[in-house]
Amino acid sequence: MRAIDIIRRKREGGEHSAEEIAFLVAGASSGSIPDYQLAAWLMAVVLRGLSASEMAALTQAMLHSGATLDLSSLPGPKVDKHSTGGVGDKTSLLLAPIAAAGGLFVPMISGRGLGHTGGTLDKLESIPGFRTDLSLEKFRSVLAACGCAMIGQTAEIAPADKKLYALRDVTATVESPGLICASIMSKKLAEGIDALVLDVKTGSGAFMKRPEDSAHLAGLMVETGRRMGKRTAALITDMDQPLGSAVGNALEASECLAMLRGRTTPADLYELTLELAGWMFFLGKKSPSVDVGRQLAADLLAGGKALAVMRKMIELQGGDPAVCEDPEKLPLARHQREFKAATGGFVSAIACEQVGVAASLLGAGRQKAEDAIDPAVGLVLHKKVGGAVKAGEALCTLHYNEESRLPPAMKLIEQCFTIAPAHPQARPLVHGVIE
Amino acid sequence: MRAIDIIRRKREGGEHSAEEIAFLVAGASSGSIPDYQLAAWLMAVVLRGLSASEMAALTQAMLHSGATLDLSSLPGPKVDKHSTGGVGDKTSLLLAPIAAAGGLFVPMISGRGLGHTGGTLDKLESIPGFRTDLSLEKFRSVLAACGCAMIGQTAEIAPADKKLYALRDVTATVESPGLICASIMSKKLAEGIDALVLDVKTGSGAFMKRPEDSAHLAGLMVETGRRMGKRTAALITDMDQPLGSAVGNALEASECLAMLRGRTTPADLYELTLELAGWMFFLGKKSPSVDVGRQLAADLLAGGKALAVMRKMIELQGGDPAVCEDPEKLPLARHQREFKAATGGFVSAIACEQVGVAASLLGAGRQKAEDAIDPAVGLVLHKKVGGAVKAGEALCTLHYNEESRLPPAMKLIEQCFTIAPAHPQARPLVHGVIE
Repeated sequence: MRAIDIIRRKREGGEHSAEEIAFLVAGASSGSIPDYQLAAWLMAVVLRGLSASEMAALTQAMLHSGATLDLSSLPGPKVDKHSTGGVGDKTSLLLAPIAAAGGLFVPMISGRGLGHTGGTLDKLESIPGFRTDLSLEKFRSVLAACGCAMIGQTAEIAPADKKLYALRDVTATVESPGLICASIMSKKLAEGIDALVLDVKTGSGAFMKRPEDSAHLAGLMVETGRRMGKRTAALITDMDQPLGSAVGNALEASECLAMLRGRTTPADLYELTLELAGWMFFLGKKSPSVDVGRQLAADLLAGGKALAVMRKMIELQGGDPAVCEDPEKLPLARHQREFKAATGGFVSAIACEQVGVAASLLGAGRQKAEDAIDPAVGLVLHKKVGGAVKAGEALCTLHYNEESRLPPAMKLIEQCFTIAPAHPQARPLVHGVIE
Repeated sequence: MRAIDIIRRKREGGEHSAEEIAFLVAGASSGSIPDYQLAAWLMAVVLRGLSASEMAALTQAMLHSGATLDLSSLPGPKVDKHSTGGVGDKTSLLLAPIAAAGGLFVPMISGRGLGHTGGTLDKLESIPGFRTDLSLEKFRSVLAACGCAMIGQTAEIAPADKKLYALRDVTATVESPGLICASIMSKKLAEGIDALVLDVKTGSGAFMKRPEDSAHLAGLMVETGRRMGKRTAALITDMDQPLGSAVGNALEASECLAMLRGRTTPADLYELTLELAGWMFFLGKKSPSVDVGRQLAADLLAGGKALAVMRKMIELQGGDPAVCEDPEKLPLARHQREFKAATGGFVSAIACEQVGVAASLLGAGRQKAEDAIDPAVGLVLHKKVGGAVKAGEALCTLHYNEESRLPPAMKLIEQCFTIAPAHPQARPLVHGVIE
């Protein structure tokens, strides 16, 4: 088997055998296939696509390029959730403890923020002392002890995906639904889960702006999950404005902890959390329907059981559990600046990606993987789309530490809110479900 | 300017500026753009194409990545011919001396055979002592002395093309009309020519099997030549059977020398040589029309003037000029084996590419650039398409040195000739002209 023949087949729109894909992935892992051949193949894949069976084969080959967790000894269903990422998307910090409190095991391996989006690891690490770099052994013990554990990608999990992702990043071959699907699914399936709920974002703050593109990716992932024998569902959810109110790492952690303490606003974050949790319970066979699962999640939140799990997980992962009751234990920015509405009316749109970029400019995000971030900074929205606003009323507050970072962020924020005289038509929070 | 943005633009079907192309070519030459980025870009180009202005910019940038010849001091028009390659395609060995005998200067930089096709350099080097690795200085002096000189690609000419070609060869990105066009034209234009005649092959023995693909490439090259200020014409010519009778290096050189001594058969080789020479004289302004140029070429052949130039060039390039009169001075294979017709009728088709592969199996060609070849071996056709044949009559003779090489070649040859009861419809020798 020769790499050049495999490249040529994809260039001509042909379909690979599972053996060809396994050959490529093994060559990528071992270095026996040079980067330039992998790069040519990746570009051919971006432009020619991957079939469902090719995607399953790629997922399988990348999954087995490294360690996989065997969690069969844990007494309960293993379920995870994955989001394609967005602005203010902090549901992982809520879902892991809720699902664990409801009897599921949630072995969550997450990523960091890049570009305009935030990352679960960064949010967790804003909790003083919290470690996300646990060994797989420690990860398993936290999971057994409290039902959930949250760590970062390790060198042992899907190393072929790591290699190919790094190459995609520098060859403009990231944006392929087939490659994105295989990359996500290979890592998630390495977690040893029984079921997976996918939150595929759509809208101006998502990587995929159009619902049909999000639905396409969702369909690919659900199909791949099913081929791998996992119960899988995907929700296409709205990312046309930030989710919840807070954007920025400690601010988002604080918002989640408040909800775990029983606060049910902001409405969109609460609603989406219940919906995703409902699906996790349903696919994990802890509830006979999504609706019953939703009610279970609401009860676990209201009764403080999810908060108790969160406290335990924070403690087990080296963090200060006092943050659960006292938000002031989280890093706080030294300065705050309100941004006020120039006219009254209704907020008809919030430029979601730009809000993410503004938070990033304040220091909450990174442009390159090696950039440092400031956990305390970000912004808090006081108005969401549909909200009535008076001239002079605050639309959001920017939290910052360095004076020099405020002007560029403020300049961007000034263009983010659209105020209209009439109430805008509401976008659905969940655009569709693919299962 | 960043390579990744340029790759993304082509991936999305956009058009590059001349600056972007110059940036990529400079990065390829200097090594500042890594191979994996170049490979991803090349695949995007194969699948998205290049516009006429992109091709001109790529040609220009590769042309100026190395040395270019300034032949303005030579007292006459500089004209070259380039063929896209085929089986038995030996016209360069005829056209260079004919054109030079008619007052043109022909600074011909040629290639080697690869796969099923032969290469001009290999044919020339079958002449004992003939050197094709002259310095550019020596090349120029041979050219000044006899009106033509024939060498191989040097490190000084278009190094960026050399780099990109090597990468295309291993990444399945050779077959792009735009890249082929820029690669050919950058090297040809570096020769300092005024005019160029292109022989674009079509048919079962050509790289492009379909006339429309050949016409497309021809159109691109003519357009690019014109944008670079050169008089350029392309003939789409037939390569559905081997050209002439001989396939193999010394056998082909011998066939050319016989024609230079005044032999006018085989008819297709003679006819195509006159047609291409006619165009060279016409574009080089040595004749008022192609037809007058054809007549000039016929006279130069018949009067022995082209042979005299050939003898001089061979001598100046270190070869033994006695081959001009005595074909036995060329390397001869030790063994010959005829392949005979099983039934009588008319030859209705000769599988052209397979004939080339059979010659290659005998040792006349190479699969990889570093393979050694045997100058003496190959085959000679006794019948061409349309020829009447009796059962038991020889269709061709295989010339070989190693016994072990005969069976696989013979096995292939047994499948190459189609004999039909009726005379086949003739294919044109020249399918069209683009100027």
